Amino acid sequence: MGEKKGIQAILDNAYAQARQVLGEGRVASYIPELAKADPSNLGACVLLQDGTEYDVGDFNIPFTMQSISKTFSLIQALQTAGYEKVFSIVGMEPTGDSFDSILQLEQKDWRPFNPLINAGAIAVVSAIEGENIFEEFVELVQKLCGDDKIMLNENVYHSEDMTGNRNRSIAYLLESRNVLQRPPVETLDDYFRMCSVMVTAKNLAHYARVLANDGIDPGTGERLVDSDIVRTVKTLMLFCGMYDESGQYAMKVGMPSKSGVGGGIVAVGRDGSGIATYGPVLNKKGNSVGGIRIMEILSRELETYIF
Amino acid sequence: MGEKKGIQAILDNAYAQARQVLGEGRVASYIPELAKADPSNLGACVLLQDGTEYDVGDFNIPFTMQSISKTFSLIQALQTAGYEKVFSIVGMEPTGDSFDSILQLEQKDWRPFNPLINAGAIAVVSAIEGENIFEEFVELVQKLCGDDKIMLNENVYHSEDMTGNRNRSIAYLLESRNVLQRPPVETLDDYFRMCSVMVTAKNLAHYARVLANDGIDPGTGERLVDSDIVRTVKTLMLFCGMYDESGQYAMKVGMPSKSGVGGGIVAVGRDGSGIATYGPVLNKKGNSVGGIRIMEILSRELETYIF
Amino acid sequence: MGEKKGIQAILDNAYAQARQVLGEGRVASYIPELAKADPSNLGACVLLQDGTEYDVGDFNIPFTMQSISKTFSLIQALQTAGYEKVFSIVGMEPTGDSFDSILQLEQKDWRPFNPLINAGAIAVVSAIEGENIFEEFVELVQKLCGDDKIMLNENVYHSEDMTGNRNRSIAYLLESRNVLQRPPVETLDDYFRMCSVMVTAKNLAHYARVLANDGIDPGTGERLVDSDIVRTVKTLMLFCGMYDESGQYAMKVGMPSKSGVGGGIVAVGRDGSGIATYGPVLNKKGNSVGGIRIMEILSRELETYIF
Amino acid sequence: MGEKKGIQAILDNAYAQARQVLGEGRVASYIPELAKADPSNLGACVLLQDGTEYDVGDFNIPFTMQSISKTFSLIQALQTAGYEKVFSIVGMEPTGDSFDSILQLEQKDWRPFNPLINAGAIAVVSAIEGENIFEEFVELVQKLCGDDKIMLNENVYHSEDMTGNRNRSIAYLLESRNVLQRPPVETLDDYFRMCSVMVTAKNLAHYARVLANDGIDPGTGERLVDSDIVRTVKTLMLFCGMYDESGQYAMKVGMPSKSGVGGGIVAVGRDGSGIATYGPVLNKKGNSVGGIRIMEILSRELETYIF
Repeated sequence: MGEKKGIQAILDNAYAQARQVLGEGRVASYIPELAKADPSNLGACVLLQDGTEYDVGDFNIPFTMQSISKTFSLIQALQTAGYEKVFSIVGMEPTGDSFDSILQLEQKDWRPFNPLINAGAIAVVSAIEGENIFEEFVELVQKLCGDDKIMLNENVYHSEDMTGNRNRSIAYLLESRNVLQRPPVETLDDYFRMCSVMVTAKNLAHYARVLANDGIDPGTGERLVDSDIVRTVKTLMLFCGMYDESGQYAMKVGMPSKSGVGGGIVAVGRDGSGIATYGPVLNKKGNSVGGIRIMEILSRELETYIF
Repeated sequence: MGEKKGIQAILDNAYAQARQVLGEGRVASYIPELAKADPSNLGACVLLQDGTEYDVGDFNIPFTMQSISKTFSLIQALQTAGYEKVFSIVGMEPTGDSFDSILQLEQKDWRPFNPLINAGAIAVVSAIEGENIFEEFVELVQKLCGDDKIMLNENVYHSEDMTGNRNRSIAYLLESRNVLQRPPVETLDDYFRMCSVMVTAKNLAHYARVLANDGIDPGTGERLVDSDIVRTVKTLMLFCGMYDESGQYAMKVGMPSKSGVGGGIVAVGRDGSGIATYGPVLNKKGNSVGGIRIMEILSRELETYIF
Repeated sequence: MGEKKGIQAILDNAYAQARQVLGEGRVASYIPELAKADPSNLGACVLLQDGTEYDVGDFNIPFTMQSISKTFSLIQALQTAGYEKVFSIVGMEPTGDSFDSILQLEQKDWRPFNPLINAGAIAVVSAIEGENIFEEFVELVQKLCGDDKIMLNENVYHSEDMTGNRNRSIAYLLESRNVLQRPPVETLDDYFRMCSVMVTAKNLAHYARVLANDGIDPGTGERLVDSDIVRTVKTLMLFCGMYDESGQYAMKVGMPSKSGVGGGIVAVGRDGSGIATYGPVLNKKGNSVGGIRIMEILSRELETYIF
Repeated sequence: MGEKKGIQAILDNAYAQARQVLGEGRVASYIPELAKADPSNLGACVLLQDGTEYDVGDFNIPFTMQSISKTFSLIQALQTAGYEKVFSIVGMEPTGDSFDSILQLEQKDWRPFNPLINAGAIAVVSAIEGENIFEEFVELVQKLCGDDKIMLNENVYHSEDMTGNRNRSIAYLLESRNVLQRPPVETLDDYFRMCSVMVTAKNLAHYARVLANDGIDPGTGERLVDSDIVRTVKTLMLFCGMYDESGQYAMKVGMPSKSGVGGGIVAVGRDGSGIATYGPVLNKKGNSVGGIRIMEILSRELETYIF
């Protein structure tokens, strides 16, 4: 990491450059409620291991996590149901290529590839154990993000529920193959709610810092997540956290990251730092245009990449 | 890295443990010549940044590179044809999952996903520019492995050529889509030869050390590969270097690695070290059973993983 | 057709031969209620254009139509919503092979291929128009089968509903693509009921005779189905009425037919005759083992095939 | 069939109507040599069982058979290698839909579906036995078409060979699965030659009449093809002779037919008649625009359909 004094300048500069490219994408429209986001929003937060915080723009505007929730639900499932149970119903591979595959065209089995695709996340959510699964999910998010005001966005939840036929199709297909551990309707209801929990870039930077410190919150010294689980989550984030832009992103940014169509990106930095961005304008891959631009610059300037 | 004195002991112990699991796999049989390998062979080499070398077992027995050649041909293509040319005909993603894919069942376009699958490697080989492409390939391998005796195994090459109908099918399909930059027969001939070049674990450890030092040979201080190319190759190795065991391997071993069905594994360690193993007994995924076991132990004991 | 005197003998002989092969299959088990069928049941009915009827075995035992219902629902949809509407949401091709396909591996669009596969039938059921769609379906079946006692099997319907997750997955996928014309739950409820309507082989022979006479009931002279609709239904039955055994069946039997996993087969004969069989023991393709055997013999002996 | 006197008028009228729609398609361009065809060409020939012949337009202009050759090579394979051998390496189904398939997305095995798709035809050609397979093929075509002048178009053959990478890919894939009975290069060479044999609409009408008379040439009374083989070929023509327009074509025309991208269509009529058309302007499915129009009108006016 560079001099602390210079980090704010780097962040401001990254923000200014990222504003230039917002015209290259569009706000998500497949869920009506998401389409209401303000395309000019952009913000970022860098949180060093020692707690120093650098912010820019709309770092404090709440947005729904969407796919970023998949990393939290995976942690919750691994904590309540255990590693073996979870990975008996979902794979951990970014790709299905075997050493003798022909052009990736051969049939894959029906176990979802990994917990960060929709089918995998739905399977993972079905495996979570507990009395009040969604309430406990929110508590976990609050703890990992260091903010006990984090809550559900009811409108987005209802919007997800109304338009979730593709996910319903996936859930019933998994159910017909006996993959789901809870009934499809109940599982999907939790899944839709989890996607609709609101966080800020600041919240996510806090979360990323916990992951960057092996599961320990450096502010309190408390271990929140086991080391093994952190390693699993970070590996999957690196491999498939940015949809089918993960390879290109890894070469440019090189930090385990996860994006959501709500506009957020959370990235685990080197040296125990956490970084997050918010910008609802997405590229064709479903990733935040401004967020990626900021991450590229920070990664290069702060040397936070792992390769 | 641990104390140098202790490294040999760790390596010896890893070797002993790996011998126990050789019964869990089989020597590759899809090419007759490979089936002749001695299943009891096992060896490893660790090469520190400062040149200190630790060896065990059959670290000096030559074997054919097979898929490990894909990393060398990618370097050669990027050096002769350039980044843009290469990645216009092959992707850089471990996976084809878009943010709205249903269970990975939707159609992918016909550009091979990445340079480490057969289709991608064939496309990459077609893009290499030069007068004597295969001779220059061998020279590149010799330089990166620090051994000017490295050469082709004619028998394996002819065996590859005799049984390469699956690769021929891929090449003609790519040709029919105008992906190949050279004629299929010429491209395949180079591809089969490259797979059939013989190296030792010691050679591959030398190569890995160059990649671990950003493309510079620490012994001579000479830059052999540009930094950008090294980063590209390491990212792809991490993401898809171990076929469809890459995710699981990354969680356990955490080093950018590449395996070949000839029995080799090459791994880029932290702190500028290179590691390689040889053991022709393969698991069902096509990776060396003994090699993976040694890598797991070394990664944990020497803390060479990147996560 | 042979001499009427000889037809009963031919039918008796076919029945005797078919009994020999019942051991070659099994009763359907994927729906619990179907698994209760008596594997020794076997029966057939031949109904000539002039009304002469030949029966053997369990021709009068009721069973659920299952996929045979797809031909009735197609007629109902074409009668209420029209040809254009129906074939705007479902195809009419047995196969997706275009003249330049490679091994059938290229992607098909998401419109179901034809009305006789599950996805197509669900789309077709969603297109049916009317006040009381299922009641009107039953009336149509009663009229075409000449039996006003035909009714729903409540147990099978509930069993279908309990185990219909695969069909739910299909319905929600179609809904997410805006193919369905009515809500998925409502459409599926009708679809499950239609599959669970009980008929006898005698009923189905009556139905087949109507189709064999271009949509006119020869007994009453009343036109029940338009000529164009009959031609459409018969073509689809011939092409894909016997699942992926349709080609082989057409070569051996050569009559437009439709089978159901409840054990029925209905076949449209030449010269205005209708033939139907019942036998719940199915082969691996999901077709009645005894029924196919009887159809083969009758087709050859009575020369009812169309080629 | 209508009055003989009226048939010429019907044919003339069909020809006139078909000329109106030639603008709705284009001459095949994927093989350079085919692109040279004259788009204004159009012709047809109807040959009654008794030998009466009706012609119109370019019924006597030679064109290459292309996919129509698949029906001849199937006959040659069945005559020389036998039914069991041929159908052990190729299927006989128009579709791969099993009773429990989901939207046709599940994996098919690698045996080509049927002899009328490229992969199936290549497999069939590999199974043909004989001393001089291509010469014997030409003799068979000459006999079935009643014209001993039929010969190879060398230019089209070389054009096919130059641009046949897609078929090469298929052949090597089949070879890698041990489906082919002869070496790929030899098989493909025969396959390309067979596609490049020139016939006229008059030739094909003669051929169709043989198929319409159960394999007997009504002119000479000689049996040229066994009854079983004829039935197999006619069934496959009906099911998949018109690429993925087969279902729609069957409903409108209802005659077992086969088209080729050279512009020909051959159709087996009722009552022992043979019909063929030529028109190189193709629709998007690869079928002759003018030919289909003529077939639709003839089928309706002459009542030659089988449903």
